Amino acid sequence: MADGSRSMRAAVLHAPHEIVVEERPVPRPEPHEVLVRVGSVGLCGSDVHYYEHGRIGDHVLRAPMVLGHEAGGEVVGRGDRVSRHDLGQRVSLEPGVPCLACSHCLTGRYNLCPRMRFFATPPVDGAFCEYVVLHEAFAHPVPDTMSDDSAALLEPLSVGVWACTRARVGKGSRVLVTGSGPVGLVAMQTALALGAAEVVVSDVNTARLELARELGATEVVDVGRTGLTESSFEADVLLECSGNPTATAQGVRRVGRAGRVVLVGMGGDEVALPLAHIQQHELDVTGTFRYANTWPTAIALASGEVELDRLVTHRFGLDEVEEALTLPARDPSAVKPVVHPQP
Amino acid sequence: MADGSRSMRAAVLHAPHEIVVEERPVPRPEPHEVLVRVGSVGLCGSDVHYYEHGRIGDHVLRAPMVLGHEAGGEVVGRGDRVSRHDLGQRVSLEPGVPCLACSHCLTGRYNLCPRMRFFATPPVDGAFCEYVVLHEAFAHPVPDTMSDDSAALLEPLSVGVWACTRARVGKGSRVLVTGSGPVGLVAMQTALALGAAEVVVSDVNTARLELARELGATEVVDVGRTGLTESSFEADVLLECSGNPTATAQGVRRVGRAGRVVLVGMGGDEVALPLAHIQQHELDVTGTFRYANTWPTAIALASGEVELDRLVTHRFGLDEVEEALTLPARDPSAVKPVVHPQP
Amino acid sequence: MADGSRSMRAAVLHAPHEIVVEERPVPRPEPHEVLVRVGSVGLCGSDVHYYEHGRIGDHVLRAPMVLGHEAGGEVVGRGDRVSRHDLGQRVSLEPGVPCLACSHCLTGRYNLCPRMRFFATPPVDGAFCEYVVLHEAFAHPVPDTMSDDSAALLEPLSVGVWACTRARVGKGSRVLVTGSGPVGLVAMQTALALGAAEVVVSDVNTARLELARELGATEVVDVGRTGLTESSFEADVLLECSGNPTATAQGVRRVGRAGRVVLVGMGGDEVALPLAHIQQHELDVTGTFRYANTWPTAIALASGEVELDRLVTHRFGLDEVEEALTLPARDPSAVKPVVHPQP
Amino acid sequence: MADGSRSMRAAVLHAPHEIVVEERPVPRPEPHEVLVRVGSVGLCGSDVHYYEHGRIGDHVLRAPMVLGHEAGGEVVGRGDRVSRHDLGQRVSLEPGVPCLACSHCLTGRYNLCPRMRFFATPPVDGAFCEYVVLHEAFAHPVPDTMSDDSAALLEPLSVGVWACTRARVGKGSRVLVTGSGPVGLVAMQTALALGAAEVVVSDVNTARLELARELGATEVVDVGRTGLTESSFEADVLLECSGNPTATAQGVRRVGRAGRVVLVGMGGDEVALPLAHIQQHELDVTGTFRYANTWPTAIALASGEVELDRLVTHRFGLDEVEEALTLPARDPSAVKPVVHPQP
Repeated sequence: MADGSRSMRAAVLHAPHEIVVEERPVPRPEPHEVLVRVGSVGLCGSDVHYYEHGRIGDHVLRAPMVLGHEAGGEVVGRGDRVSRHDLGQRVSLEPGVPCLACSHCLTGRYNLCPRMRFFATPPVDGAFCEYVVLHEAFAHPVPDTMSDDSAALLEPLSVGVWACTRARVGKGSRVLVTGSGPVGLVAMQTALALGAAEVVVSDVNTARLELARELGATEVVDVGRTGLTESSFEADVLLECSGNPTATAQGVRRVGRAGRVVLVGMGGDEVALPLAHIQQHELDVTGTFRYANTWPTAIALASGEVELDRLVTHRFGLDEVEEALTLPARDPSAVKPVVHPQP
Repeated sequence: MADGSRSMRAAVLHAPHEIVVEERPVPRPEPHEVLVRVGSVGLCGSDVHYYEHGRIGDHVLRAPMVLGHEAGGEVVGRGDRVSRHDLGQRVSLEPGVPCLACSHCLTGRYNLCPRMRFFATPPVDGAFCEYVVLHEAFAHPVPDTMSDDSAALLEPLSVGVWACTRARVGKGSRVLVTGSGPVGLVAMQTALALGAAEVVVSDVNTARLELARELGATEVVDVGRTGLTESSFEADVLLECSGNPTATAQGVRRVGRAGRVVLVGMGGDEVALPLAHIQQHELDVTGTFRYANTWPTAIALASGEVELDRLVTHRFGLDEVEEALTLPARDPSAVKPVVHPQP
Repeated sequence: MADGSRSMRAAVLHAPHEIVVEERPVPRPEPHEVLVRVGSVGLCGSDVHYYEHGRIGDHVLRAPMVLGHEAGGEVVGRGDRVSRHDLGQRVSLEPGVPCLACSHCLTGRYNLCPRMRFFATPPVDGAFCEYVVLHEAFAHPVPDTMSDDSAALLEPLSVGVWACTRARVGKGSRVLVTGSGPVGLVAMQTALALGAAEVVVSDVNTARLELARELGATEVVDVGRTGLTESSFEADVLLECSGNPTATAQGVRRVGRAGRVVLVGMGGDEVALPLAHIQQHELDVTGTFRYANTWPTAIALASGEVELDRLVTHRFGLDEVEEALTLPARDPSAVKPVVHPQP
Repeated sequence: MADGSRSMRAAVLHAPHEIVVEERPVPRPEPHEVLVRVGSVGLCGSDVHYYEHGRIGDHVLRAPMVLGHEAGGEVVGRGDRVSRHDLGQRVSLEPGVPCLACSHCLTGRYNLCPRMRFFATPPVDGAFCEYVVLHEAFAHPVPDTMSDDSAALLEPLSVGVWACTRARVGKGSRVLVTGSGPVGLVAMQTALALGAAEVVVSDVNTARLELARELGATEVVDVGRTGLTESSFEADVLLECSGNPTATAQGVRRVGRAGRVVLVGMGGDEVALPLAHIQQHELDVTGTFRYANTWPTAIALASGEVELDRLVTHRFGLDEVEEALTLPARDPSAVKPVVHPQP
């Protein structure tokens, strides 16, 4: 970066429904950290939720915070002991940095680290700003053929990769995806890219179902018209991406013996699950919490079969972050808005 | 067996609350089958349920049927092509014989075989009778030091082994067992034998909790007095053996990050599970349906750390099967009644 | 089949270098078996070995036997209790039928069954004949769009699938395949279809290397000119398909930390492996013995990314089996000859 | 520690066969590090090898270095940000600290980290001295009932735990351990503690075989008198702890279908392995390189079934390190000498 530019602009959430674009100092990279000029940031439902409610569960906004955790950009500064990246390296940001040394980190499940510091989760600032710093190991190099938007959207893609990993999706799998929001759409594409023979997607939003079909779904079910219970489809895998209790329960019943259920969508504190069906078919049910070690696969997918740019429906500047945050409520055709923080 | 004895006595369920002890022909072993003189048969909650209701879910009694599926005995006849057992071999019976050739059988999960024929599940007769036939591969040799009762109770022990297997219980595991009925008690003993460092057992039945403690539980919780929610115990594994919805939901919340939940107890069609907890801790939740390939481990356990005879609280003859079936409702101190069918 | 045709023609190996085409009775299907009219049979190195030496290791030809174990055809008869196939169903034959009830069968590794009966392994006849019988579970339905030759070659493809399965090849894997014979070529294609990012193939046969390149290898190494030791390629996976000791040892050294080595090629009783490299990199090394549960994946692959017909270089009638068996020695351009047994 | 004591004594290897006990500054803990007063240090074959040859493979002594990497002691100082240990906490030291952030570290196989810094591996000093510093995550708390010697010997025990983990030793396993040196003896005890039904130990050293028997081996084989090839024992698992090529090859041939082989003993650059046996039985063969995430299990084992103090045959002070290093060559009865560095 130009040495003189020691301040930057950031869109800061001060309270629910109150975003202020401010000047802030450009952060300085600590040892092992790189400074990244942010090129694109995807807008996620959790950003909207913080904007509207100032909290998600136990995570409460107690001080002004920058939102945004799906980011791609370019390395423009290096802290001490950085060895992986040269200046100019384009990167996708994995937005959570764990402690690296607890039992979860040391056994490869760092996403469960209780000391995780995650972008846009209080009190950690996110990426709706011009520059961020990050541990170099979590700034993943991307090929120059990949757009900044796609680099940013490797984060939601990672959610899909993690879901498919835990669901053991492979060659020939029959997959049901409930919910065709951004996560459902990347989960669906990931399943196809990993060899799934059939991927059925259900939702009530016909525009999103149409997009699912264009992106390769072998069948779409408009559950506003036809219930999942009327389908005879027997899935090996359910990727629940809606958070809707009815979709969850009905989806689980579509999964056959020895099948896997991954609960990705957030649907509240408790959900009723079909116990007898789970037992008699010995389903493996799990929830996902972010992801671990997914970027290499996500990069490989986004360099090939998975189309991330297709998900981007709207683009905003840093001054328009509030407009971006209110878009989903206004426009049901919105899939994935992105923010480009550079002037 | 003596060649002359071509008939035998069997306790036959004709309708709910109607057991008749009848003379029946001794069954003839088909190829690969052995004829077993039954020494002891454990009484299971499912037997009681068929006796009281004539059905379990979709399995409906449509013709007279013999109950009993936890059996041990001695090989007294061999069909064609039997190669494993000599006459006189003492055996424990694995009471379900799958088709052996479907995709579930061929991938090692034969318990999910849709063509499974299982003792005392309509229309297949069980073991409350003097003789049964069984595929030799499912008549497991036991050491002569093992009692007939223990040989019979390898079946419920297998339920515990399967639960611990799917829960990946190992050295140092911290295990919560909700429900200290026969299955909870074998699950608890199995967990300890597999190296669990702590095994906490909860129930409302103080007599059973006392037995749990005697059998090695590191802590017992009387949930009639102290809720699980008041415990600070963080489990790696929940073995849910009560079928009680409150125990299930509270038990799941006691399981920490990367933990495993195995739902063994039957608790109805649906159950409310703490979704957000499952997601944030990435719990692996599964149900068990019977067991697969458990007898070798069960035999090793019952030859060592696991005490099965301690579970036997009452013994009955074949004429007393009805008395045995009504015992649990009459006597809360009953843990595992057994039937000895020989005169 | 026409009811009158009760005899068929078969190419029978009587002694090394002595094949006689004889009339034999059409076999009758036992219970669970189907009668299959053979459409195409691939010729394998093991057939050539029996033809030349009358034995492979401990398996010795002691009576006349029909060779050929890679077969596709059509169901033309059904034994008792056959439930899966109608007459006219086109099938690919999995040529080994295990006992189904030993500990290996019951745990899903039926390929290790000590009672396996395998086509063209003494004393079991193979498929160089007009009709064979087989347990219906091992006659796998194929789509009508698949040629008989491809249906036959699902057998070698299964070898590749099994190798990739045991090597855990997945999205982004870097794979080295040593040996580009038929097995190397299907292993290579399978690895690519399962998402491998790089697949390097080595051999001394430049024609086969050229075919490897056409089929998608990302790099080929002519080890007659350039040693593997001069390559800087670091593989995640080695699929050793040559049986050559030098290729094996050099190939293993190309595998990096936490990598997997699958020894597919038969290279004699003992082989020198780089112990220190295996230890310091904690490689997982295994050999494969046939395959288990591979047909569903193989069918999915052959219906999509994997081209089996491209491997077929020569076609012969039943009277030309001897010519087929001597072809590989005569013609280094031969990849996979097939025999079409029907007149 | 007393604040005034700013220097300590250390036994320093200057060149092969040249140990000098010197005064050195007590090291200062960096952030996340603790200062540990060393109570006991086990002597390992690698220490002897460095003492005699000044190198192990590519690891060459280029500057004076302290040997010793099996250590237990007490926390007497805390660097910044240390949160786990209070002063006075007794600990066992895991002597290798990885980078924590490479792909191997992040996937739970930190033992394969290429930037690992490991005690007594040039240029990193070891523990034959009064004080060492270590990342707090690698200083594992031990119960006060555990001796310093046992705390030190958790390190070799971890080698055994890792071997058994990778070999999937469990309830009922039949295990062959070739070599009854310290590693063989802990591997044997670990296998027993994890439920192995049979553990056969082979060696040529009758004293060690006798110790193996006392520690629970179900059978010992003096291969100086009876070859392994004459045994009919069929193992599920081989834990090769001798590094001897003959033992390795013969041991592998004793492993049955679907068995596992773990090559722990260092036996040179290449070793001849029975390829056909590995293939036909589909053995999983791997080597181990140190260990990962083993201390919790090792602590649980050493608190129960595994006797570490029994391995200690000789004790030395810091001035006697050279005597300790030459002991194994002088005294075949030596199993595990330990050094107590405190005055």
